Amino acid sequence: MKTILPRMVSLHEVALRDGIQNEKVIVSTEEKIKLIDRLADCGIRQIEVSSFVNPRLVPQMADAEDLWKKIKRRDGVRFSALILSEKGLDRAIQCKVPHVGIFVSASETHSKKNSNKTISEAFDEALRLILKARSVGMEVRAGVMNSFGCVYEGRIPVEKVTALVNRYLEAGPDEICLADSSGLGNPFQVKDVLQRVKSITGNMPLALHLHNTRGAGLANLFSALEEGIDSFDTSLGGLGGCPFIAGARGNISTEDTVSMLHEMGIETGIDLDALIQASLDFEKVMGQTFPAMVSHLCGAKG
Amino acid sequence: MKTILPRMVSLHEVALRDGIQNEKVIVSTEEKIKLIDRLADCGIRQIEVSSFVNPRLVPQMADAEDLWKKIKRRDGVRFSALILSEKGLDRAIQCKVPHVGIFVSASETHSKKNSNKTISEAFDEALRLILKARSVGMEVRAGVMNSFGCVYEGRIPVEKVTALVNRYLEAGPDEICLADSSGLGNPFQVKDVLQRVKSITGNMPLALHLHNTRGAGLANLFSALEEGIDSFDTSLGGLGGCPFIAGARGNISTEDTVSMLHEMGIETGIDLDALIQASLDFEKVMGQTFPAMVSHLCGAKG
Repeated sequence: MKTILPRMVSLHEVALRDGIQNEKVIVSTEEKIKLIDRLADCGIRQIEVSSFVNPRLVPQMADAEDLWKKIKRRDGVRFSALILSEKGLDRAIQCKVPHVGIFVSASETHSKKNSNKTISEAFDEALRLILKARSVGMEVRAGVMNSFGCVYEGRIPVEKVTALVNRYLEAGPDEICLADSSGLGNPFQVKDVLQRVKSITGNMPLALHLHNTRGAGLANLFSALEEGIDSFDTSLGGLGGCPFIAGARGNISTEDTVSMLHEMGIETGIDLDALIQASLDFEKVMGQTFPAMVSHLCGAKG
Repeated sequence: MKTILPRMVSLHEVALRDGIQNEKVIVSTEEKIKLIDRLADCGIRQIEVSSFVNPRLVPQMADAEDLWKKIKRRDGVRFSALILSEKGLDRAIQCKVPHVGIFVSASETHSKKNSNKTISEAFDEALRLILKARSVGMEVRAGVMNSFGCVYEGRIPVEKVTALVNRYLEAGPDEICLADSSGLGNPFQVKDVLQRVKSITGNMPLALHLHNTRGAGLANLFSALEEGIDSFDTSLGGLGGCPFIAGARGNISTEDTVSMLHEMGIETGIDLDALIQASLDFEKVMGQTFPAMVSHLCGAKG
């Protein structure tokens, strides 16, 4: 039996948000703009520009307003922001952000730690935010954090995820995103969760946000491809996660993902060589070697 | 449709051969013995102890005879060596090595560079070695290097691989091993090659030797699991490959593989916590941080 994989996959670049949000080196607004332009030049068509959060809690995102004012909007490129509160949404509305991500956690413990709300309270708030965002013409991606596991609670029952997705559908988002925020998913489970969620979402676009914490990131991606998923969050260089301990890794890397997809004959519209160069240049800005593999091949052709 | 995965997977540990063969730090015979004992204590049941090669070309393997004399053989643990020539086989016979790996390359260019022989010449030699090894009671794993691609020739036509496997079967090896020596395979191709090779090998055990050069190692492994493959080469810490350039990576790591398999409910018989500790201790011997991910998780539980 032949597996039918998607012919084209879209990547949503999160280096500027998930990637750098915990990094010690504060990236200047100018460097962020430069990176955004380079990513768009490489052919990336979805770029998460910032989150709107308390700048005291996340100093890396303190320039959100300034950044949104200065970026060159381009036809065909979807710029987006992550929203965590009504205050954040209001700031995004001020900045004319066209696309927002709004997430709740499937883990009660994580929800409490992350937002000081129960899942139910966080969800009610998320629904209000989705309706408000849509009422001002924003596109909305509604997401479930820790869909595959939680460092505090372990494996998350799939019923918790499907229940949240079901309720999201009432609010009519433009896309559903399942996030393996802690990198605890495995390829077998990914298949199982996706099969269950797809049976609810039908034709609603469904994206996956994967981390490579345990090295299984691209295995999870391949498993999802086999389930027909064609939209993934990736981070340039594999930035993200906990940067303060050697070897701890973040999101699946954009370049390794593009490399694997292209090798499989799946199109992304992205110029891999240019992307690798952008990643190596951004390493200099961040003063570190990123975990991505294809940017660090040994010798001319590996 | 549910995927049926193997319930139990065997790992063949190659850190002592593929892992360290190109490393600058020469590991003492005593440290090698200590590591072999620890790996066996962790539950690993197949350990590649050394290759028998010219010590001037591979100084790390210069103590092969001494090592084989000193290791504690254990019931249920398969100790093996890699053989590249008749001289090497004769040394292995002297050392009473019970299991040898004998490989040819599927790439003409690589074969010339590796052995100064055409594939056809190398294959004739390999067949002679297999027959000789079997005549003295050794078990033989017959392998094909570069089964999925070659840095010099690019993609290797699957027909070249199946032709070699077909000829191997005449010599009656105990196992066939397909090696992605350059880490160029992708999960879609792995499926294709395995389906073609399995149609020839029937019930002959079939193992996969994967590298994580481009980050797709565990994706390739998952793809192979879906094809029913239940035997893989892994290297403690993900050692192997080219160690002299930052970020260049080697074999798929034993601990990340065990972690992913266990998360999927697949048994390995290996104690993951003990394995991680062995990896962290061996990092000290090698004076480096290994690329494996689960040994470097951030915080208590990731």
